[in-house]
This record gives sequence, C-alpha cells and structure tokens, in this order.
Amino acid sequence: MPDFIRRIPEGDNRERLVCAGCGYIAYENPRVVVGSVVVQDDAVLMCRRAIEPRRGYWTLPAGYLELGETPEEGAAREAMEEAQANIVLDGILAVFSISRIGQVQVIFRGRFADQARPDFAAGPESEAVALYTWDAIPWNDIAFPSVRWALNAWRNSGAGVLGAPFGNPPEDRRGVQRLTAAAEGGV
Amino acid sequence: MPDFIRRIPEGDNRERLVCAGCGYIAYENPRVVVGSVVVQDDAVLMCRRAIEPRRGYWTLPAGYLELGETPEEGAAREAMEEAQANIVLDGILAVFSISRIGQVQVIFRGRFADQARPDFAAGPESEAVALYTWDAIPWNDIAFPSVRWALNAWRNSGAGVLGAPFGNPPEDRRGVQRLTAAAEGGV
Repeated sequence: MPDFIRRIPEGDNRERLVCAGCGYIAYENPRVVVGSVVVQDDAVLMCRRAIEPRRGYWTLPAGYLELGETPEEGAAREAMEEAQANIVLDGILAVFSISRIGQVQVIFRGRFADQARPDFAAGPESEAVALYTWDAIPWNDIAFPSVRWALNAWRNSGAGVLGAPFGNPPEDRRGVQRLTAAAEGGV
Repeated sequence: MPDFIRRIPEGDNRERLVCAGCGYIAYENPRVVVGSVVVQDDAVLMCRRAIEPRRGYWTLPAGYLELGETPEEGAAREAMEEAQANIVLDGILAVFSISRIGQVQVIFRGRFADQARPDFAAGPESEAVALYTWDAIPWNDIAFPSVRWALNAWRNSGAGVLGAPFGNPPEDRRGVQRLTAAAEGGV
C-alpha cells in the first residue's frame, strides 16, 4: 500500500486517508449498489452466487454502480452480467441503507425486455439463475438481509404503479445488523 | 500522488487505478450526494454558497454522504452544517443521476423540527440562508441544474404524501449536460 496516514485535512472536519509522501487525499465514501427485482408473471428472478461472500446463497441481480453509469444503466448491466437477462425498469422500488458497510442500495422493479420469451441464464458470477414464485423462494438460503427486504418490498408494492420507495425495515433502520443464522431463517 | 497506473485487475472487466508498487486497487465509484428541500409554509430553505464551485449562487443544503451515515442522517447533517437548521425528513422526493461527474443525488423533502420557530442561519459554507416562496426564488442565480430539478420536484409533489421519486428531467436523463448560461436562465 502507499504510505497513507489518517488525519484531518485543512478545511475538513473528519479524518481522511492522506498520503504521507505527497498529500494525496484518498476519500472513502459510501458506495452505491444498484439492483433489481425482475418480475415475470408472479415470479421473481434470483441468482445463486458463484463467488464469495455468501457463495451458494441466493440473491437478486445487483452490484456496485460504476463511474459514468446512471443507476438504471447499472441495474440493467448487473442483470445482464449475473443473469444474462435483458431487462427494462419500472422505477425505484426501494432505497436501503447499509451504513455498517457504507452502502446505499437503489433497488428497481423491472421485467424482461421480451416478456413473451424471458431469456436468462447463469452469468460468470452465478451458479444458477431461476424464477421463483413467492412461496418457492429459497428463504433459508438468502444471501443478504437486504435481499429479503427487497423481496418484501416487491410483495408489498404489488404489480401496479410504484409509490414512495420502501426503506429499511423497522428492526434495522440504519443497516447496522450483521448477518445471523436467526435473521436468515424464516421470512 | 502514489505511482498509480490504469489496468484491468484479474477477475475484473474494466480499468482501475492500481498502485504500480504494491498492487493496491484504488476503486473509483460514484458518490452519493444527499440533500433536502426544507419547506416552511409555502417557502423553501436555500443557501448562497460561500465556497467554490459556484460561490455566490444559490443551492439547497446538500453534500456528500459520509461513511457510517444513512442518507437521512447525511441530509440532516448537511442542513445543520450549511443552514444551522434542525430538520426532520418526510421521505425521498427525488433521485437524480449526474453521470458526467459520478454523482447519485438522493433529495429528501423535509421541514424544520420546530415548525413554530424555524431557526436557521448561515453555516461556514454559506454566505446567506433564506426562505423563498416559489416566485421569489433567485432563478437566475441557481448554483446547479439539479437544484432547479429538485425545486421543480417539490413544486410538482405538493405538500401531501410523497409518491414515486422524481428523476432527471427528459432533456438530461443521464445527467451529462454541463452548466450553461442558457440552461441557468429562466425556469
């Protein structure tokens, strides 16, 4: 690593990583995760992770937003990369905060671009991709709490016009709870 | 600066800044700006910038989300820092993408915590802070296009229950247009 030290730069009010050699400030800010609940009839597109963390567990197509992308473009790219699915978005379903790990998640509701022929397949980061109806969702093998939150948001939004985005559930408003076996069991 | 080079790390598919000496990858991702339209009766809280860029022009209380914060906490902090205002938030009014400069903006609608006594004052980054009714907003001296977008979103949302968040206007869906004198004139 470069020789970074933690100090408060002039005109700032919190510690940053500053290169001891040249003064370069490596700002660390929260990152944006973009993802989608892709709905076909009454089923949702899910991916079983082929990579750590949580390899073998089920998630939604989602990942870090890249520079130069809009959130919509990033969510569509992730659906293509992880599920080889060409999707269109209805709008924002939920905005979650996982402050413990510096993430803001923007989750869209979407559908296949060609609803008559919903093509999908496992991309390189997925072991498997499947459409699940609500009762068939592998609830005991969900990768992250926010996947469950997003699925609940879809359930509560229905298929109609989207309203105000859903947020974190009352039991974890700030997104600070770690994944626990108890938290992952049941709906 | 540390001796960074641009290359595609193993297992990735786009160029990153990699330290030539030690292999440290400095990921550059979009940043989250959080801000608020703080409404008191039919007026909105605005700040005249005391710092560059756009010093002397009017903006809304907003700034970069910091690690460990939720977007709501960040928006409230910015209102305190820039306008010395203690606010509460109604919910998300708009989500804007400024892909040209790698920003995702989450704009809340809020109000003063004590509506009977709406205290505010210029913080260190503001030359002045004021409540403006729609017609009194200094439209010719707005700092950024997204300030105008947020004000329009407030106008269109009214004071009632928030619906789906507003997004970029049709003329700049991806947030790629630079500030121009023409774009800043008129509503």
